[in-house]
Amino acid sequence: MEKGITTRSEDFSQWYNDIVMRAELADYSPVKGCMVIRPYGYAMWENIQRLLDKRIKDSGHENAYFPLFIPESFLSKEADHVEGFAPECAVVTHGGGKKLEENLYVRPTSETIMYAMYSKWIRSWRDLPVLINQWGNVVRWEMRTRLFLRTTEFLWQEGHTAHATAEEAEEETLKILGIYKEFAENVLAIPVYTGVKSDAEKFAGALRTYTIEAMMQDRKALQLGTSHNLGQNFAKAFNVNFQNKEGKLEYVWQTSWGVSTRLIGAIVMAHGDDRGLVLPPRIAPVAVVIVPIYRDVPSREKVLKVAEECKELIGEAAAVKIDDRDQYTPGWKFNEWELRGVPLRVEIGPRDVQNEQVVLVRRDEGRKEVVPQNRFRERVIETLDQIQKNLFERCLKFRDANTVDLDDLGEFSEKMESPGIFARSHWCGSPECEAAIKEQTRATIRYVPFDADEEKGRCLSCGKESNHRVIFARAY
Amino acid sequence: MEKGITTRSEDFSQWYNDIVMRAELADYSPVKGCMVIRPYGYAMWENIQRLLDKRIKDSGHENAYFPLFIPESFLSKEADHVEGFAPECAVVTHGGGKKLEENLYVRPTSETIMYAMYSKWIRSWRDLPVLINQWGNVVRWEMRTRLFLRTTEFLWQEGHTAHATAEEAEEETLKILGIYKEFAENVLAIPVYTGVKSDAEKFAGALRTYTIEAMMQDRKALQLGTSHNLGQNFAKAFNVNFQNKEGKLEYVWQTSWGVSTRLIGAIVMAHGDDRGLVLPPRIAPVAVVIVPIYRDVPSREKVLKVAEECKELIGEAAAVKIDDRDQYTPGWKFNEWELRGVPLRVEIGPRDVQNEQVVLVRRDEGRKEVVPQNRFRERVIETLDQIQKNLFERCLKFRDANTVDLDDLGEFSEKMESPGIFARSHWCGSPECEAAIKEQTRATIRYVPFDADEEKGRCLSCGKESNHRVIFARAY
Repeated sequence: MEKGITTRSEDFSQWYNDIVMRAELADYSPVKGCMVIRPYGYAMWENIQRLLDKRIKDSGHENAYFPLFIPESFLSKEADHVEGFAPECAVVTHGGGKKLEENLYVRPTSETIMYAMYSKWIRSWRDLPVLINQWGNVVRWEMRTRLFLRTTEFLWQEGHTAHATAEEAEEETLKILGIYKEFAENVLAIPVYTGVKSDAEKFAGALRTYTIEAMMQDRKALQLGTSHNLGQNFAKAFNVNFQNKEGKLEYVWQTSWGVSTRLIGAIVMAHGDDRGLVLPPRIAPVAVVIVPIYRDVPSREKVLKVAEECKELIGEAAAVKIDDRDQYTPGWKFNEWELRGVPLRVEIGPRDVQNEQVVLVRRDEGRKEVVPQNRFRERVIETLDQIQKNLFERCLKFRDANTVDLDDLGEFSEKMESPGIFARSHWCGSPECEAAIKEQTRATIRYVPFDADEEKGRCLSCGKESNHRVIFARAY
Repeated sequence: MEKGITTRSEDFSQWYNDIVMRAELADYSPVKGCMVIRPYGYAMWENIQRLLDKRIKDSGHENAYFPLFIPESFLSKEADHVEGFAPECAVVTHGGGKKLEENLYVRPTSETIMYAMYSKWIRSWRDLPVLINQWGNVVRWEMRTRLFLRTTEFLWQEGHTAHATAEEAEEETLKILGIYKEFAENVLAIPVYTGVKSDAEKFAGALRTYTIEAMMQDRKALQLGTSHNLGQNFAKAFNVNFQNKEGKLEYVWQTSWGVSTRLIGAIVMAHGDDRGLVLPPRIAPVAVVIVPIYRDVPSREKVLKVAEECKELIGEAAAVKIDDRDQYTPGWKFNEWELRGVPLRVEIGPRDVQNEQVVLVRRDEGRKEVVPQNRFRERVIETLDQIQKNLFERCLKFRDANTVDLDDLGEFSEKMESPGIFARSHWCGSPECEAAIKEQTRATIRYVPFDADEEKGRCLSCGKESNHRVIFARAY
């Protein structure tokens, strides 16, 4: 390591950048606002894709691919949508050496281009539901960018479904929200709150936007994924209709939903520590690293033989890597793999070989454990499970401890500033009060809970009566 | 089926479009030159990705992701490259509501943006080789487009490596060519010729381009993949250098290589017949379709029970689907799955249940076989292997029968016109003769063989002496 990493308490934001760059997850590119996802970061994205794609397919969806470009006239068909997205678009005006007759927008999201096709494909109730997902890149022009969290181009999946009834569309929207929550919690080890966005925060063109929201270690909120009930807004704009069982024409009911490479930023900020990344075993490109310790050629051979045997023993149960690079010392390797967040390190030295044992070191707690070789496989699998669980519980405890009821705007404002907080507070429901609170404290309404307990209170801003609390936080 | 498919002998090109559209592999989009890859076609692409990605990773490469946009000044740094690609580019001139200071090209290929990063990352011989691959979309403005074969936007993988020596770069270029050949032949069941491109046909900016070339059923050539030895051309343009073991600065030696969604078009044109797609089992989204045959509820139950048992028996050995849709007749389903190219159909009727047997029908030969249920799994696996092999051998036989030595330009021209041919002919090596032959016959040099037998002859065009034959064909 050439130089230290900024600590979280010194400067959380600088710590984040240090980790992302030094662990080689990503790098800045010469294209303004665009990042390069380096192999180690991309391997995390591949794990996210594989595990989420399985869930998307198991719930009946199919993948497809639609064009990168959207004609200007298409984006304009849904009024809220164009107002929300057109200002963020990259615009292609020339192609093949000529000025285009109609400008093309690089997709900021694919509702409009996809639903133009749906309108062609869907004729009858027999064609419904349409359950399509797409993995791809999108572009939204950003002025202030942050690696993974906010970049002009990013990678994501976007699901787009069409249904015969309003009920089915609502059911789908919530089913996906459930899949996102389960994925975030079980795979990324990040507990999430679920709820519905206020009108000011909802997707441009949606009826309702549901969200999963997580707390980062600086007590700010990160929106990890959203699921939109689009109602018939786009169906009417794109004339997506079908003949129902009674032979009458009806507009379809639609949903769209997505998560992006932002999830990688979430993993960094939820679990990392001052020594580097801390990766949940289920998402780690390398779950177990074996570091052989040797001084000479004969001990190298003996130790490497046991390392290979250990790797074999784990087989397909976890991603294992043996770090047999001679040009680095074991100490250097320990630091390197800690920086890269590998959940479990296995140390094997000549004495361990003699004693038929190995040493396991957990990244999350740093604890060492001597394990007999004949219990190696079993113990590695157990320990990885424990790490996965521990990371989740650590986050959950932290989040719950920092989610509090606040009824006084002064205290609210102070705690938002430092140390940061998820505030459960009363709000009268008016966009004006929402905007005033945001203006004054930079906190936004993250979500309105689904099943908020009825509780009388007074709006933080105007003091009018309110029947339940909503959750405020500063957000990325 | 609403209407028939054009036959191959009537109009090969129309047959191709009919199949692609009717089997729902793809559809035209409202964006000029861009296609929509529908779920069935995309499932083929996912199989291609999965099986090729494994080969790319097993040979030591890692995946990463680089920006979609390339600053105009970057593309211009390598003279041949900009000349070849700039005229085909889509150009972003506005972003975030403002005119950009520098235009951005939507990547037609990523050499320039990637090597700008390589120049930052590579310092010493210890950093080499860099072995990176990217899966993504690229855009090349096309006037005359054809679904999968030539579209403005397409999906592909592009590998980009950097090495310390010219020998290593050449070795990598050929290693990848070998992987492409093995993949095309073993997975897609398409035999390919390998060789080197003439200067006129090589990649803009490469030292040498190697190619895999296949014959379609209309006896035209389709280039399935290319592997380029870039020498130090880009290294010099982007200042990608390293300190060698002796401490001296040297430019790296580079390669790039790619295959695209065009492979799906190749599968259609290599194997399809007048009833529809014929898919090689290893790439088919559905390798085995079970069609239950029943007249009433009790027979439906009995038959479906056996169908489920059969599906269970196959397990992970092949992708199986039971078509239990009640609204369609078995005959309708047979046609549908033949159109969609499913390699093996299993028919199960009440009499089969009684006799503890099932009927297998091969898509490639139409042959029916009655198989006892207790030999079902074994026989399905054997048959799928036979189909995979048969498709390859059928193509190979066809290709070899249509690859001939031609020494007379008149005969050459006539056979190129009809029925089409791969002509092994003499060429003096001059770009002028190459251009003249192309002008006159529309045939291009597909490749110069690696180990052509020395044979004296006279150039088809100018009559000068030539020492070996090269392969000409009309190409997509």
